[in-house]
Amino acid sequence: MLPSGLRIITEQMAGARSASLGVWIGVGSRDETATTHGASHFLEHLLFKGTDERSALDISIALDAVGGEFNAFTAKEYTCFHARVLGEDLPLAVDVLGDMITGSLLEAHDVDAERDVILDEIAMHEDDPDDVVQNLLADLAWGSGPLGRPIAGTTASIESMTRAQIERFYRKHYRPENMVVSAAGAVDHAEVVKLVRRFFRRHDFLAGTAEPSGPRTGRRQPRIRGGEGRISRPFEQVNVVLAAEGIPRDDDRRFALGVLNTALGGGTSSRLFQEVREHRGLAYSVYSFASHYADSGLVGVAVGCLPDRLDEVLEVVRVELSRITAHGITAEELARGKGQLIGGLVLGLEDSASRMMRLGKAELVYADVLGIDEVMARIDAVTLEDIRSVATDVFGRPELLAIVGP
Amino acid sequence: MLPSGLRIITEQMAGARSASLGVWIGVGSRDETATTHGASHFLEHLLFKGTDERSALDISIALDAVGGEFNAFTAKEYTCFHARVLGEDLPLAVDVLGDMITGSLLEAHDVDAERDVILDEIAMHEDDPDDVVQNLLADLAWGSGPLGRPIAGTTASIESMTRAQIERFYRKHYRPENMVVSAAGAVDHAEVVKLVRRFFRRHDFLAGTAEPSGPRTGRRQPRIRGGEGRISRPFEQVNVVLAAEGIPRDDDRRFALGVLNTALGGGTSSRLFQEVREHRGLAYSVYSFASHYADSGLVGVAVGCLPDRLDEVLEVVRVELSRITAHGITAEELARGKGQLIGGLVLGLEDSASRMMRLGKAELVYADVLGIDEVMARIDAVTLEDIRSVATDVFGRPELLAIVGP
Repeated sequence: MLPSGLRIITEQMAGARSASLGVWIGVGSRDETATTHGASHFLEHLLFKGTDERSALDISIALDAVGGEFNAFTAKEYTCFHARVLGEDLPLAVDVLGDMITGSLLEAHDVDAERDVILDEIAMHEDDPDDVVQNLLADLAWGSGPLGRPIAGTTASIESMTRAQIERFYRKHYRPENMVVSAAGAVDHAEVVKLVRRFFRRHDFLAGTAEPSGPRTGRRQPRIRGGEGRISRPFEQVNVVLAAEGIPRDDDRRFALGVLNTALGGGTSSRLFQEVREHRGLAYSVYSFASHYADSGLVGVAVGCLPDRLDEVLEVVRVELSRITAHGITAEELARGKGQLIGGLVLGLEDSASRMMRLGKAELVYADVLGIDEVMARIDAVTLEDIRSVATDVFGRPELLAIVGP
Repeated sequence: MLPSGLRIITEQMAGARSASLGVWIGVGSRDETATTHGASHFLEHLLFKGTDERSALDISIALDAVGGEFNAFTAKEYTCFHARVLGEDLPLAVDVLGDMITGSLLEAHDVDAERDVILDEIAMHEDDPDDVVQNLLADLAWGSGPLGRPIAGTTASIESMTRAQIERFYRKHYRPENMVVSAAGAVDHAEVVKLVRRFFRRHDFLAGTAEPSGPRTGRRQPRIRGGEGRISRPFEQVNVVLAAEGIPRDDDRRFALGVLNTALGGGTSSRLFQEVREHRGLAYSVYSFASHYADSGLVGVAVGCLPDRLDEVLEVVRVELSRITAHGITAEELARGKGQLIGGLVLGLEDSASRMMRLGKAELVYADVLGIDEVMARIDAVTLEDIRSVATDVFGRPELLAIVGP
C-alpha cells in the first residue's frame, strides 16, 4: 500500500511470459444518482480519450503495437481497466494505465463524440435478448434503487449528462484510497510498486495520505419482493429468467450456494441441462446463476426457448427447484460439484489474466483476500446439510419472473 | 500417424499443468447437400448423446467431475471436439472423446430430442443481428453453393432430416484418414499415441489402413459477383457488412492481408476504429475481417450503428477502403501491425488450448504445418509493396453489401 491509500497486490507465476495488470476502482452504477445514471460507464469510455501526454490515438497505439490485450469494463460496484502483455512490456502498460486513470482531460468534444458511441452501445444491448431480460430482472428485483438500473444508463440520462457532472464524478471516485492495482504473471512485486509510484503521478496519487476505504458495505437493500415483468419484442425466442433474492458477497454460505448452483444448472451434467435440454429438447441454452453484491444478491435460472415451449419450460424448472429445495442434492452430485469448482479453479491458475482478476476484485470487495488453498478448503468443506439449508432459504423466497419475447 | 490414417500431433509445454485435447474432422457444412443441410452440426450435437458404453449423462459427468472444459464446434470445412483438463486427467479426456467419436449410437429418440434443441438454436441465431448479417453475406457471396448455406441448416432441412441420412453422413465422414487428434500442454507424444490406440478402438479406426486424405482442395468456387441484400428486422441498430472476395487459405499473400486487416480495422488504433468511432462517434462496434477457405475467402468491414447514421458510416468506410487501396499503409502502420500480430501470437503460446487449436487446424487444413517461428518470420517479411498489392487486388473486387435492421 502506498501512503495515498492506493493498494498494490501481485502474484508472481514461475515460468510465465505474460504479465496481466488491472486497475480496480470501487465505483459502479450503484454509486450514481438519477442525474448521473451511466456516469461510471461513460467515464470508463472517456478515460481512453486522452491526457495532456497522450491523445486517444497514442493510447490505442501504445498497447496495440506490442500485441497486448487492453480493455475495461464497468459493473454495478466497480470499474476495471486491464491489460495483458509480455513481461518486458509491463512498464509500458503501467505507464499507459496510470496516465489514463490519473490524468484524463475529459474534453468537451470527446464527451460529445463518446456520448454518441454509448447511445449506440445502448441500442446494441436493446437488440440482445439476454441483456434485455437481465435488465428487466434487475428492475423487478431492485426497482429504481441503485442496483436496479442498467449499468450503461438510459438514452435519456446519457443524452442529458454534462461534462461538468462527469468530471465531478471522476474527481470524487477516482481516488487512490478507492483503488487497487493488481498484477500477476511475469511480475515482481517491488518492481510493480516502483512502476506505480512512477506512473500514477498526478494529483495526490502519491503525495496524499489516506486509509484505503475498505470493502463496500452498502446499505442493506430492502428485501426483494416477488414480481413478474414482461417485455414484448418481436424475437424468435422467448428469453426467461426465474429468480429470487440470493445472498450478499461476504455471506459464508456462498461456497455452499456455489456447489448448489453447479449441481442445479452449472454444466452439462447438471439437473436443468439434463432435464430441459437432454431429455426434453426444450431449449438450447439453460443454466442457473448466483450473483453477489455487497448487500444483496440474486439466484436464478435463465432459459431461451421457442414461444410454444415456454409453459413446459417454466413447469420443468419449477419442479426442479422444488425438488432441490425439498431434498437437496445427492452425495454424488456434491462430490461432482466440488470437483467441478475446484478443477476449474486449478485450471484457471495457469492464466495470468484470471489470477490478476481474482486478486484485484478480492482486494477491492472482500475484507479478507482468501488464498486459492483457502478457497478450495472452503469448497471442500461444504456438506449436504449446508446445501439443503441454503437451498431452502433462497428458493423459498418470493419468485421473480422476467420474460422477453414475442 | 497410425496405419489407419489417423494423425496425431502434439506439443509438450514445459511447466504446463493443463492438457488440451482436440479431435478435428474434415467435415463441415460445405460437404452437405440440400437434403443433408445442417448434418455436420446435427452430428456434432448427437455425438454427445451416448455410446454403448456411456449414456449422455455419463459423458457429461465424466469431464464435469474433474472441472474440465469440454465442448465442440462446427465450421464450414471442419468439426472440432475439444477438452481442457489437468494433465493427470488426459487419459479420461481421450477415453471420452474417443468413445463419443468412434462409437456414437445415434438413437432415434435422441435424434428427435436434439432436433428440437437445434431448431431452438436456429431461432437464437435469428435473434442475433451479427449472425443474421453474416449469414446474409455468405448467401450474397456464394448463393446456394456449399459455402453459402448457414452451418446450422434451416428449420426446413432440420425438420426433415432422417436418422438414416445422418448415420450415412457419419459413416462417410468420420473416418480415421479424415481426422486429426491434436494435444498440447502437459502431454507426452508417446503417451498420447498410446491413449489414442487404446480409446479410438471401434470400427476400423485401428485395424484399417489408409493414407490421410490430405488438405481439402475444394473445387474452385465461381468468382464472387457483387451484390446487395437487405433483411428487415425490428432491431434498434442497423448491422451492416461491406465485403469483397478475399483469398483462399493457402495463398501466400495471407500474411500481408493479415497485416493489412490489422491496420484497417484490427484494433483500437486501426483506421476504421479511429475514424468511425473515435473521431465521429458513429458506432460502438466497427472492425474488419478476413476469412479463408480452401478455395475462396472474404474480406470486409462490419459495423453496427443507429439507423440514421448508416449513410455516413458507409461513406466513411468506403473512403477508408479507397484510401488504403490507392495508397497502402504507412511504414509506421506496417511496423505496428506486425508487432500486434506477432505479440498476439507470442501471448497465445502460454495457453495449451490455443496451441492445440493452432496445431490441429493446421494439420487438417494446410499442406505444411508452419512452426511459430516460421509464421513470425513470414509476418515479419511483409513489405509495404505486398500490402499495397493485396489491397489493390481484394478491395478492387466487386462489392458485397449486407444490411440487417429496421
